[in-house]
Amino acid sequence: MGSGAIGSYYGGKLAAIGHDVHFLMRADLETVRDQGLTLRSTESPTIHLPIVQAYGSTNEIGPVDIVLIALKTTSNSALETLIPPLLHAGTTLVTLQNGLGNEAFLAERFGAERIMGALCFVCLNRVAPGVIEHYGLGAISIGEFKGPSQERTHAFAAALRESGIEANVVDDLMTERWRKLVWNIPFNGLSIAAGGIDTAQILADPGLEQLVRGLMRETLAIAAATGHPIPDSFADFQIERTYPMGPYKPSSLLDYVAGRPVEVESIWGESYRQGVAAGIDVGRLEALYFLVKKLTAVRLVESRCSN
Amino acid sequence: MGSGAIGSYYGGKLAAIGHDVHFLMRADLETVRDQGLTLRSTESPTIHLPIVQAYGSTNEIGPVDIVLIALKTTSNSALETLIPPLLHAGTTLVTLQNGLGNEAFLAERFGAERIMGALCFVCLNRVAPGVIEHYGLGAISIGEFKGPSQERTHAFAAALRESGIEANVVDDLMTERWRKLVWNIPFNGLSIAAGGIDTAQILADPGLEQLVRGLMRETLAIAAATGHPIPDSFADFQIERTYPMGPYKPSSLLDYVAGRPVEVESIWGESYRQGVAAGIDVGRLEALYFLVKKLTAVRLVESRCSN
Repeated sequence: MGSGAIGSYYGGKLAAIGHDVHFLMRADLETVRDQGLTLRSTESPTIHLPIVQAYGSTNEIGPVDIVLIALKTTSNSALETLIPPLLHAGTTLVTLQNGLGNEAFLAERFGAERIMGALCFVCLNRVAPGVIEHYGLGAISIGEFKGPSQERTHAFAAALRESGIEANVVDDLMTERWRKLVWNIPFNGLSIAAGGIDTAQILADPGLEQLVRGLMRETLAIAAATGHPIPDSFADFQIERTYPMGPYKPSSLLDYVAGRPVEVESIWGESYRQGVAAGIDVGRLEALYFLVKKLTAVRLVESRCSN
Repeated sequence: MGSGAIGSYYGGKLAAIGHDVHFLMRADLETVRDQGLTLRSTESPTIHLPIVQAYGSTNEIGPVDIVLIALKTTSNSALETLIPPLLHAGTTLVTLQNGLGNEAFLAERFGAERIMGALCFVCLNRVAPGVIEHYGLGAISIGEFKGPSQERTHAFAAALRESGIEANVVDDLMTERWRKLVWNIPFNGLSIAAGGIDTAQILADPGLEQLVRGLMRETLAIAAATGHPIPDSFADFQIERTYPMGPYKPSSLLDYVAGRPVEVESIWGESYRQGVAAGIDVGRLEALYFLVKKLTAVRLVESRCSN
């Protein structure tokens, strides 16, 4: 569901080795029906799927075993009507979406026992309708929303591995999400709030570098308070690994600059609310959340007006 | 010293009633020597001073009794060489500058006993070289840097009152500065960091309104910790009095948009450092300070490049 770069890539890889994959598409539907799906990569041969099971609605697809959810979290409300036609008693929902709150959103509506989540570490871009360019990485971490991994968790990871994707199973999905947020909260946020700058420009400014560390400390405090302790040294590790990335533009900045919706709530909003609920004074996160929320809302209006 | 709108207005009013006022000027020097100084007002008759004692250096002026300092705080380092030629044993230095740290800066270099400070509540604009437009208000609060008011404090206030300015003496100048910062820190800062918006737009956004309150709480906490307690209710009062101001653009935003230096250190930097020194976790202020610092630095470069 949601066949942008992420959905088309992972779905396409599974279809390429013979799995029965159905794609829910919107913008690219006609093109993909006509011309199929193309996965290009700087690391492996191009995959072209000439015939793709592509649909414009989930009613046409009907009940399935696994739903891979790759919609942007800003469209989560659409899931309430999109998902029901796909369900049978044993359907598993796997969210590949960013940030916090997506598993909980699905669990509340469709039952916690159905829900798995995955974190994607991959550089992808949809360069044209039905054409996905893969620039590097591709690993995926899969876990259950509630409790440790199960047979189905390992089965799904094995299917992905068979298709050539580096897939690993994690026993504490939420801690993995927090680990990713330790990076996303400061870098995605400051890249927007400090005027549209990349990670190298953030780290080159002593004030912003200090603010990155402060935001990481607050994120680690919320993670710990909600039962997902991560060692403090992880902040240093996340900063150190950012230097070699050079002038990297976080995905939220690319969305912001292009006038696309930014996943404000699943990255900053939900973390902030969990921090407040835990009684922690997360002042830096509060400032960043409300500033990014305002800046992205204004930008979206501007962008719409110029279309 | 520093004959922009503030310096020209207060200096001009004193000169108009016969005080021996010498103006240090830069950009407007030739025009004022040729055409004099004009103070226009929506509230009182125009004052035109055809002959003005205007100078390009403080060496030409020589020792004086009172130095009125109206330079932008971003030029404070220039004071180290500008002030010494003006000093005799009894010279008083009065800073009309914004924010924190200006009295301390002068005290360190020229002796604390010389220093007075003043807060100006006035709407002025330099509309052309040598022409100042007064839009309203004009009150000035004067106090000693160290200790309560003295005879000289009252004498200076009396001279200003005689010239038609509403001048009052305060016994705790630093508390007055903190009271002003309770407004300036959130509103001037968020007007820049939230994308160039006015006070009405800030208050219309629930997240930013909450952030205003959080920043005010942090400011009050620093003020209290540094010996200048202000009742918590002052925050509500400052917010309530902002609504009737309508779509007001804080002076820092006007400077930012015009590509002029913004007084980052005297508004956010010095407050932040005093908060850190007092051991308070001022996360919202830290975020705002470092973001505004970066945004204004970038803006200044852009603005210079386009000249």
